[in-house]
Amino acid sequence: MTQYTNIETLVWVDTGDFSHSYLRMIDQTFLPVELKMLDCRAIETVWEAIKILRVRGAPAIGIAAAYGLCVGLQPLFNDGSEPSEAEFFAKLKASHDYLACSRPTAVNLFWALDRMTAKAESLRGTMSPRPLVHALLAEAKLIHEEDRRICRSIGNHGAALVRDGDSLLTHCNAGGLATADYGTALAVFFAATEQGKKIHVYADETRPLLQGARLTSWELWQRGIGVTLICDSMAALVMRQGKVNAVFVGADRIATNGDTANKIGTYGVAVAAKAHDVPFYVAAPVSTFDLTIADGSLIPIEERDPDEIRCGFGTRTVPAEVQVYNPAFDVTPAELITGIVTEHGVISPVNRENVEAMLTR
Amino acid sequence: MTQYTNIETLVWVDTGDFSHSYLRMIDQTFLPVELKMLDCRAIETVWEAIKILRVRGAPAIGIAAAYGLCVGLQPLFNDGSEPSEAEFFAKLKASHDYLACSRPTAVNLFWALDRMTAKAESLRGTMSPRPLVHALLAEAKLIHEEDRRICRSIGNHGAALVRDGDSLLTHCNAGGLATADYGTALAVFFAATEQGKKIHVYADETRPLLQGARLTSWELWQRGIGVTLICDSMAALVMRQGKVNAVFVGADRIATNGDTANKIGTYGVAVAAKAHDVPFYVAAPVSTFDLTIADGSLIPIEERDPDEIRCGFGTRTVPAEVQVYNPAFDVTPAELITGIVTEHGVISPVNRENVEAMLTR
Repeated sequence: MTQYTNIETLVWVDTGDFSHSYLRMIDQTFLPVELKMLDCRAIETVWEAIKILRVRGAPAIGIAAAYGLCVGLQPLFNDGSEPSEAEFFAKLKASHDYLACSRPTAVNLFWALDRMTAKAESLRGTMSPRPLVHALLAEAKLIHEEDRRICRSIGNHGAALVRDGDSLLTHCNAGGLATADYGTALAVFFAATEQGKKIHVYADETRPLLQGARLTSWELWQRGIGVTLICDSMAALVMRQGKVNAVFVGADRIATNGDTANKIGTYGVAVAAKAHDVPFYVAAPVSTFDLTIADGSLIPIEERDPDEIRCGFGTRTVPAEVQVYNPAFDVTPAELITGIVTEHGVISPVNRENVEAMLTR
Repeated sequence: MTQYTNIETLVWVDTGDFSHSYLRMIDQTFLPVELKMLDCRAIETVWEAIKILRVRGAPAIGIAAAYGLCVGLQPLFNDGSEPSEAEFFAKLKASHDYLACSRPTAVNLFWALDRMTAKAESLRGTMSPRPLVHALLAEAKLIHEEDRRICRSIGNHGAALVRDGDSLLTHCNAGGLATADYGTALAVFFAATEQGKKIHVYADETRPLLQGARLTSWELWQRGIGVTLICDSMAALVMRQGKVNAVFVGADRIATNGDTANKIGTYGVAVAAKAHDVPFYVAAPVSTFDLTIADGSLIPIEERDPDEIRCGFGTRTVPAEVQVYNPAFDVTPAELITGIVTEHGVISPVNRENVEAMLTR
């Protein structure tokens, strides 16, 4: 299979004309068999891409949504036309609400949409809609650029927790494909490697959609980091065998007390890590924290189509009549988390006081 | 999908002529999409069926191997011919050794082969090869028949541990498809239901070969027991949600101290059960105990083809260059097992003293 370098998960393709520019993204549903790009020229395309995981990973969803708002505003400016301020803000609200219903768990989606809307509101009355939409596009690019710096910073803070020769385990994909740059959990591995530390990574395949197999093992292999793919059910065994020095995972939403929603299966990994005295770290930008939520019991958990399990990879393996439970996420309680690696530093021990201290510094 | 009743996993089809009789089995690799039978008229067919899991489950492998020995001896009796005693025992030994190398972990395979060989040895010199092979076939049928009674007895002992309204979890398939009758772990569910207890079962899909999805959910659905299929990575979550009152699994080999080898993922379920104070039971016939082995560290663990993980269900999902670890089993230490349900009763607490007491009663 081909090895690529420097693939951008998300790119705003600027044609010099706002109403004909567009968002280009890797369609991750074809990976690793095919590296296929999707050009989003309509907000519905962005919505569908988030919905069915053509783009996934909390930070990447936030960036896609920010650009998606701009795509949603494009029809107002077609053929040199210019909307009224009222039309502009009505369309902005409709686009915001539409994208917000694509997926319910990743808080970065709402964070990015809210930040974009707040930016527009802060400029309301100071300029006409055309410069306003350019200011919004600039804000989306800023979110994108900030995420690059955040990845690097998370990587550096996390790499300090990794020793030369460590063997590490991760679940799902919190890599470059989930962010603007080289990830959150995987950023830790990439930064440690850049520092000259030799590491090996166990990647859980992450049923039902196999992001660990399709994306994480592919990303690590692409960048030359030693990786061993395992089924999710093997994580406890490799820990018992003493093969795992630490676990690093990403996050989709973190409550004020540090309870963390992440891909289904993360909780089981955390339980196993605790049982084997293996440190368990979450790596996520501060935009992943939802301070409106006191603890993890209040995080809404998306349930997805049972056929993701019944008909994996296009083959029916279960009678259609058999009932299936398919939660996309679970919540790992703060007491199982050794530390949360953010762009500002590591929160440890994980509790409300330390979370609030890190977020207000 | 069609519902069937009274499907026999293994049948010796007696044509009235030994050398043209054969072993018929369900080819489980086609389930649940197709109920296809495989007729074994050559020992190589039996070996291959065990190797690639057309027949699987420790007790069923033992029965198939016992009949497989008879199939292996058939060529000696073709067209009314009769071998010498030396030829007979040479062929028996070769057949024994050949079948013994089909799969390394399930001890019932060796137990059944050893029992058949011991039977032949006990009769050596007392009769000619033709009545001897008929005595061996009778021994295979006896193993088969005994397993039926064992299933019922395990079911009854286990059902006493199940309360009306319980919600139970199982991993892999320890059902009728793994035994002569209605299973070991699943026998507990079937017997509890027969006693009028209303239960619900969570079935782990059991990657990589999905025996839980393809076989267990199918068996439970066939028999009208409420079943919810989950991915292996969801077991810890449903326990945390308070949805699991007890776990029942089968076993492939049990050491003298009670350490239990079973399908990969069982250990992680046991760790999660412990963390949530959920009782964890193993259900297995006494033939699963290997008293030559002091503890689980000595049980050989089969490693299988990495492409079972890389190319699940015929679709490549991982670059071929990515390294894969594919152990077929793991070992759950005795201290995580609440009890072992055998045909003679329940061993609890699980330790060497209680194991030896149960096995010598």
